[in-house]
Amino acid sequence: MPPRVPVVHVAALIGGAAGLLLLARAMSASRAPARTRRRVVVIGAGFGGLQASTALARMADVELCVLDQHNHHLFQPLLYQVATAALSVEDIASPIRGIIPTRARPRVLMDRVTGIDAPGHRVLCEDRSFPYDFLVVATGSEPSYFGHEAWRRSAPGLKTLDDALELRRRILSAFERAVVATGEPAERARMLTFVLVGAGPTGVEMAGAIAELARDMVRRDFHTRDRMRARIVLVEAGPRVLPDFAADLSRSAARALSAMGVEVRTDTRVTTIADGAIHCAFHGGDEVIAAETIIWMAGVAATPVASWLGIEPDRNGRIAVEPDLRVPGQPDIYVIGDAALVTDAHGKRLPGVAPVAKQQGGYVADAIARRIRARPAAGAFAYRDYGTLATIGRNKAVAEFGSVHLTGFVAWVTWAVAHIFFLIGFRNRVLVSAKWLISYVTRERGGRVIT
Amino acid sequence: MPPRVPVVHVAALIGGAAGLLLLARAMSASRAPARTRRRVVVIGAGFGGLQASTALARMADVELCVLDQHNHHLFQPLLYQVATAALSVEDIASPIRGIIPTRARPRVLMDRVTGIDAPGHRVLCEDRSFPYDFLVVATGSEPSYFGHEAWRRSAPGLKTLDDALELRRRILSAFERAVVATGEPAERARMLTFVLVGAGPTGVEMAGAIAELARDMVRRDFHTRDRMRARIVLVEAGPRVLPDFAADLSRSAARALSAMGVEVRTDTRVTTIADGAIHCAFHGGDEVIAAETIIWMAGVAATPVASWLGIEPDRNGRIAVEPDLRVPGQPDIYVIGDAALVTDAHGKRLPGVAPVAKQQGGYVADAIARRIRARPAAGAFAYRDYGTLATIGRNKAVAEFGSVHLTGFVAWVTWAVAHIFFLIGFRNRVLVSAKWLISYVTRERGGRVIT
Repeated sequence: MPPRVPVVHVAALIGGAAGLLLLARAMSASRAPARTRRRVVVIGAGFGGLQASTALARMADVELCVLDQHNHHLFQPLLYQVATAALSVEDIASPIRGIIPTRARPRVLMDRVTGIDAPGHRVLCEDRSFPYDFLVVATGSEPSYFGHEAWRRSAPGLKTLDDALELRRRILSAFERAVVATGEPAERARMLTFVLVGAGPTGVEMAGAIAELARDMVRRDFHTRDRMRARIVLVEAGPRVLPDFAADLSRSAARALSAMGVEVRTDTRVTTIADGAIHCAFHGGDEVIAAETIIWMAGVAATPVASWLGIEPDRNGRIAVEPDLRVPGQPDIYVIGDAALVTDAHGKRLPGVAPVAKQQGGYVADAIARRIRARPAAGAFAYRDYGTLATIGRNKAVAEFGSVHLTGFVAWVTWAVAHIFFLIGFRNRVLVSAKWLISYVTRERGGRVIT
Repeated sequence: MPPRVPVVHVAALIGGAAGLLLLARAMSASRAPARTRRRVVVIGAGFGGLQASTALARMADVELCVLDQHNHHLFQPLLYQVATAALSVEDIASPIRGIIPTRARPRVLMDRVTGIDAPGHRVLCEDRSFPYDFLVVATGSEPSYFGHEAWRRSAPGLKTLDDALELRRRILSAFERAVVATGEPAERARMLTFVLVGAGPTGVEMAGAIAELARDMVRRDFHTRDRMRARIVLVEAGPRVLPDFAADLSRSAARALSAMGVEVRTDTRVTTIADGAIHCAFHGGDEVIAAETIIWMAGVAATPVASWLGIEPDRNGRIAVEPDLRVPGQPDIYVIGDAALVTDAHGKRLPGVAPVAKQQGGYVADAIARRIRARPAAGAFAYRDYGTLATIGRNKAVAEFGSVHLTGFVAWVTWAVAHIFFLIGFRNRVLVSAKWLISYVTRERGGRVIT
């Protein structure tokens, strides 16, 4: 005897199945079939590339591939805190795979790009290549020595996590070596002299951080009989520190640095750098500073994207792009961030900072979506400047929001809150907040570890 | 007219000054004059050396000098968590200078010891030497390959922070390379195979941690189409995992590992290790496992302290010391921790674990104080075993406190609380607790960063 199935149950089953089918259809419709998806390749997962990638990854009609030579996105504004032992590597680096939404199943690959085959619409890596319909180049910049390549070894810059760990090792080792130095006092003084070249935000922040690290660490970990006294010199070719800030904020920052014991040398050019010594020239004289640690923060240049594209770059390696961030003559290639040379409506060059790169990343994702969906193009890219911040040390910072200029504790809290807000991920926000709070109270840095 | 000073004020002033003088005298008396202080040198700031140093640093009649080739004390029990991206380097490493109390102004120096001049009572470093009245050698151990030195490169061990970072890099890179591997499936399988040699606590903890890292990371960061599947093999020459634990706990640990997908191979000997492959032999056969990552956790040997002292060590490089931890024939030299071979009252060798080293460190500090102050010597060193813990993974651990055996969640919480308690410093306790809590809730590891 067949089992008896009430009619109402069968109807419910059929209705349910039909509903599920409709739902499945609706869901699959929201993801376009693979052959109609357009391939977008993003090179670089810095601020610009990541912003573009996260937006593109949400688009059902985009097949996204993100290439980066590292497996992590780096929050560069806090890199100097890794170098000065206030934060850990993991606090400011997040795996790229973990950030980009997986709805449209983007490919995230750790590989080194070797070139671009623009006519063939392919990105070239060592072992393989990636076809694209649209390409976003967001490869950033690296320290530039303006032709003095020999200086690179003696005066490293600060762009990657490895740079930061190497600088931390140099800074902490200088103190360890100085305490055991048996030679003459001049040699000990040389070991504890730190010269920073370039007084932009990173140079100022790093100088302040080294001054605080040295002061707190010597006070806590060494004895007076160890005769440890660090000397920090900040050399700037221009007439003032923080040249991109308003003049009153520059003066405030310079005063704060001096109060912390940093020797600020403006209008001073570097003429030679060798291992252990830096030669400077200023109006009416020159000077040789004997220093074990010299840090280069005077300039950056774009990575070799210009040579990939066979285009003549500007003197900083950047590519002058169209107002819609496309490469002239290459309508399917966008260049953003530090690799792009963009001028605003007043003819002023946009600075190589995170907000510019992020806004450009969002702009190109939207521009690509409009082209794929055959919607009218947006206007030219326009940068919206929300303000600039730089920190000098404990309770000391400067902030410029249009005509509103802040200094001291208020600027410092604004800086801290803004950086926590822009950090990626709940975990990093919690940990960095906790570390800053503990350091603020105890005046101790957790990262004084030489590896 | 001279100002009128009431007599009572003058008396109070004189009294106060006299009181201050007496106080200052009393304070300076509590620190013995420099020439009567006895010089104690401690080599190594691991668990044993640090325990001895912190006790000795509090003694006014001791002039302490601590030598270590690193600037930090390392909390080795959690080193595997750095290797598997759960913790940062800074969480488990603390600058030695920051730990040792500074009351008696100890010298803490980062230097590499090259030998001991026992007749001359001097510790030799490359550029200088340190005289001592009493010497504590706490130099620990390093991975030992039982004569197969060629295996070291293919199968690194886990003893230092650099080891941990190198292993982390290898493990994370294996996944990154596997996802872009274009070759045959066998090659991809080899990339994702991890073999651990030795199923002591570290091997078991590392195997469990890699299994969880692989599972959570693949689930979160990769797509099914990436066809990522890690294989973890734990090879043990003996008949069971965790041989120092009770048999029921060994069985529990083995079951937990199997449930996590770890292949446990007991009674299996390693015959050869080469880059990318490990050869094993077991009763009735042998096997070659193709594996990109091979980790050596099968044994350690003491560092070259025996050759420094011209003494024949045991097969693990340890020095058989007297019951009071002194070197036979060298009454002023103490050897503690992994470098010492000590047997308990039942003739059983003490294991090379942190509690043994710490208790020995405290013992020698007391023994030296007694000798300086001409008090009667203490009895032989006696180890007090408070219990043993090993964790396997989330909610999985084993704990043995005498006849009390714990497994599962209870053991795991006990393990976590004990390790937080024994960590050094408020900051590290807060940060590690926070990280474990976040990881427990989100099943995410913060350290998935390849440097």
